[in-house]
Formats: sequence, C-alpha cells, structure tokens
Amino acid sequence: MTLLVVGSVALDSISTPFGSTADAIGGSAVFFAVAASLLHPVRVVGVVGDDYPVHELDRLASRGIDWSGVERAVGESFRWKGKYSYDLQSRETLETRLGVFANFQPKLPPGAEDAKIVFLGNIDPVLQLGILDQVKSPLFVAADTMNYWIQSKRDDLMKLLARVDMLMVNDSEARELSGDWNVHRAGRWILEHGPKRVVIKQGEYGALLIEPGRSFHIPAFPLEEVFDPTGAGDAFAGGFMGYLGRTKVIDTAHMRRAMVYGATMGSYSVSGFGVKGFETVTTEDVEKRVQQFIDLTHVPMAEPEG
Amino acid sequence: MTLLVVGSVALDSISTPFGSTADAIGGSAVFFAVAASLLHPVRVVGVVGDDYPVHELDRLASRGIDWSGVERAVGESFRWKGKYSYDLQSRETLETRLGVFANFQPKLPPGAEDAKIVFLGNIDPVLQLGILDQVKSPLFVAADTMNYWIQSKRDDLMKLLARVDMLMVNDSEARELSGDWNVHRAGRWILEHGPKRVVIKQGEYGALLIEPGRSFHIPAFPLEEVFDPTGAGDAFAGGFMGYLGRTKVIDTAHMRRAMVYGATMGSYSVSGFGVKGFETVTTEDVEKRVQQFIDLTHVPMAEPEG
Repeated sequence: MTLLVVGSVALDSISTPFGSTADAIGGSAVFFAVAASLLHPVRVVGVVGDDYPVHELDRLASRGIDWSGVERAVGESFRWKGKYSYDLQSRETLETRLGVFANFQPKLPPGAEDAKIVFLGNIDPVLQLGILDQVKSPLFVAADTMNYWIQSKRDDLMKLLARVDMLMVNDSEARELSGDWNVHRAGRWILEHGPKRVVIKQGEYGALLIEPGRSFHIPAFPLEEVFDPTGAGDAFAGGFMGYLGRTKVIDTAHMRRAMVYGATMGSYSVSGFGVKGFETVTTEDVEKRVQQFIDLTHVPMAEPEG
Repeated sequence: MTLLVVGSVALDSISTPFGSTADAIGGSAVFFAVAASLLHPVRVVGVVGDDYPVHELDRLASRGIDWSGVERAVGESFRWKGKYSYDLQSRETLETRLGVFANFQPKLPPGAEDAKIVFLGNIDPVLQLGILDQVKSPLFVAADTMNYWIQSKRDDLMKLLARVDMLMVNDSEARELSGDWNVHRAGRWILEHGPKRVVIKQGEYGALLIEPGRSFHIPAFPLEEVFDPTGAGDAFAGGFMGYLGRTKVIDTAHMRRAMVYGATMGSYSVSGFGVKGFETVTTEDVEKRVQQFIDLTHVPMAEPEG
C-alpha cells in the first residue's frame, strides 16, 4: 500500500543553546520520510535545486525512501534559518529563501497516483489541492498547514479542508484557523469544515486527536535532553501515517496507536540536530519506546478495596 | 483514616473575561477540602478573621468537611485579588492582604494528630514543618509550595522536602526550585532531595507524576468552557489525596489512579467561579468523569494485522 508525502526538501541552518548546523538536510518531506520509513516504505514528492547534497538523500534511500518524485531543478534549494530560545520554547525565523520552491508544480511520478495513504505537508494549499487531483482513490489523506497560508490563502485552504480526512496542525495554527483560543472548540470548528478527524500538536505537551464527540491525548516522551525541535511535527506525522500505511485500517483504535507512533518519532526527532536523532534508531527501538509510551499513560484499572 | 489539610482559608476577588467575583470563599484549604470531600471526609486546619462568612463553610460541612481546626481570630481574613488574561493562560495578582494569616500558628485540633494522609498546602515552610511535628505517624505526606517561599525560605523548604513523601508543585515552581528549565530533570532533582515522588502540575496541559525511573502523565480534561482557573491546583491535590484517603494504599498503581481523580477535580474547579464548579457534582459524576479520563488516554493494545 503506497504511502506518499509531498512537502519541502530543504537545507536548514539552525541555532539552539546546544549547538548549530548550517545547510543540513531538512524540510517537512524529509523529516516525514525518515520517520515513516521506520514503519513502512514511503514515496516523496518535492523539489531540490542543483546545490542540494542529493547523495545524502541517496544514502537514506536504503531505509525504504523512494526519492524519484523529487524534481531536480536549476537554481537554489529551499533554505530556512532559525534560532531557538534558551528553553527551546520559542523560535525566530532569521531567513527563508524559497529558491526553486517558488515555482514548484508538484507532479506525481509513475505509480504514485495509486497511493492510498497520503500526507500533504505544509505547502501552498493550491499545490496540495493539485496533488489531491492526481491521486486516484486514496484511503486516507491528511494535510498540514501554517499561519502563512491561513492568512494568505484562506479560501484555498478551506477548499482543501473539505477534501481531506484529517488536518494535522499545531495549537497556534488551530487557534488562528478557527478564530477560537480554546483548542477543543477550535478542533470542533475544524471538524465542522470537512475533516473527520483533527490532530492538534502541542509541542512538549504532546498532541490531541479530536474525533466527533471523543478525544484522545498523548503526551510527549519525558526527555531530559532535547537538542533541536525542528522537524518534530513532521516526524510525528511520519510516524502517524507510516503506522497507518502498515496497518491499512482506518478507525479510532488505529488512530490512537498511530498517535503513539507519531509521538515516538517526535521524540527521536528532537534528540538530535536535524534528522540525526534517527541515525541509529532501529525498528526494535521504536517498538520498545511505543511500549514505554503506553506505560507512560497507563492507568491500572482495578479498583482495590481499602 | 483521617485526611488532613492545612492551608489558607481566604476571600478571593477574581476577574476573568467571563465575569468577576468579590470576596468569594477560596484559599488552598477550601478548594482542597471541597474536592477531597467528594471522595473521603477531610479535616481542615487554618485561620479566618472575624469578617469571614463562616456560614458558607458551615454549609459545606455536610459534605464531610470538618472545619473545627479553623481558628477564628480577631482581624481581617486573608484576601487575594487577581485578574486573568483573555485566554486564562496568565494572571496578575492585584492585591494580597495577609490579615490574620500573618500571625497564624497552626495547631492541630484534638484527634487530628492521628491523621494518616496529610496535605501541607502552600504556606510558610516553617509552619508546614510545625504541622509535621504535630502529626504522630502519617502514612503519606504531600506538600505544595510557591515561588515566594522558594525565594525567601529556601533553607526551611529544603528541610521540609527531606521530610515529605511527595512534593506537588506547578512546572514553573519545579523549575525555580531546581534551577533547571527541563521539567523531567527538575523532577529528578526534587527526588534527589527527599520526596519519593513528585507531581508537577502543568495547568491546561495536565500533570506529571515522577517516580524514580518511571513517569506518568495525565492530560487536563478536554473542556470547551473554562471559567476560572483559581484553585484548580488545590482541587487537584484534594482529588489526589482524597483518593488515597479512601484506598489507603501507597503504591504506583494507586498514585496513577489518584492522578486521575486529581485531574477530575481540577476539571470541575475550572468550570465555575471559585468553588461553584463543585456545587452540583455528585460522586456518580466523579466516577463517570474518571472513566472518561481513562478513555481519553487509552491506547487499544491489540496489534491488528494489516
């Protein structure tokens, strides 16, 4: 069952209190793919410039990532430069250079139109809609977005909302999109505008899965060391969608387990700069952390007598 | 098994975007007792001035709250005046008047020295130590504190830490006490200075129970309407300790269930001004919400075949 992601393939320059990187591979599609591939093969659609270290992508191909949908254009790759606060709670974008991404028209490579599990990473909603037009009969489509598109392409974003099964955004985006500061009301507002489910990511506080009349919460993994939050949300999405790609069942029980896999991948992501947090992670490690996650929220049910 | 709380019995004047109250009954011991009494009878130690509406306390006595340990002194009751931001995420203290609380020397009423489950609400650590000296053989003692005492009475607070079974503080207090911004490291630091367990409250994000080598997280209940966060932390403590008073077993399983009862009481507390959120709550309501809480974090375990 083909798992497909469209999103940015970027070069990130990041500064945190614990160090910095320059032009490291990143972008939503890369974080997503690195995480998802621990669970299920994944095909990536995106674009890079002629300055991109494609050998680094090639090196990751053995994990089960098919980069054939990544167009190689003439020009500069998409670059993002950011700086985090001392406690990693906030970040400042120092520079964004769209490069070849400015004129990107995503086109599915042969076979990708049969994709069943599709993640539309955070790009222009017009392009997200364009991808959706090319996919024949998806089983489950989720989309991410950000404040920039909420403000500048609201109408297109609302059209997209009506056509996806799930929106996956962070809490500030859910608030901005709905115009409601209460995340639970914001989630309900989103459900009223199309998707059957919404995931609201809350950074170090975990994530909420909101379904009509029923919610689920997963905390973030209790890490004593966090190095770089960049890409954690995309890694979360990769774990979530990778799990669904593997199980092929779309119901509440599987969504909840997908949340655990998402949070697990988010925890690896923040444990190293860029995608480095994933370098030595095995599928056994993943399953072990998933079990630790389940223990982290497990309430022993038996009511003992006093 | 006697459940005992010492803390403030106050008059709160609160302003939120949804309304305001003036001189409403409140204070850590009152919120604690109103919540705890839904689970187990509770004895309160504190002080009020001659201006306090004691008939309101008397009215609550039928819930199973024994106010005989609340001294009635000559002078003004403890008053707190605060204002919340539009999203209830932050608050400003407009006025604090200690009144009779300034010269408070808590003394246990007859029989209370046999208390087994003891909560030392947020007061001067010297007074908390004084209470501890009067209790003969407690089974479980938990304490709260705040930035004021962390800054002004650090040595006494560290003495207290060495003598309690659990510290229950909010995340900013844990950070300030330990000098570490990472809550998990902060929690471990606290464990290294005495208590066997620590609860770190995170407001709308729930609460963490940290034990040596093992953590547990409970989210806040997904409420679409929140009116007044005042006292939610004390109501949490009341639910937590009330559950332990009822079950009388001190182990990880019971601590985790106590967390659920704590979070349940926190959710009632924020649903109305002052203690009003509890007015119509029955023990059946509590058990129902506890079950909803367990569903909120429940991960179906069976790994299905795709």
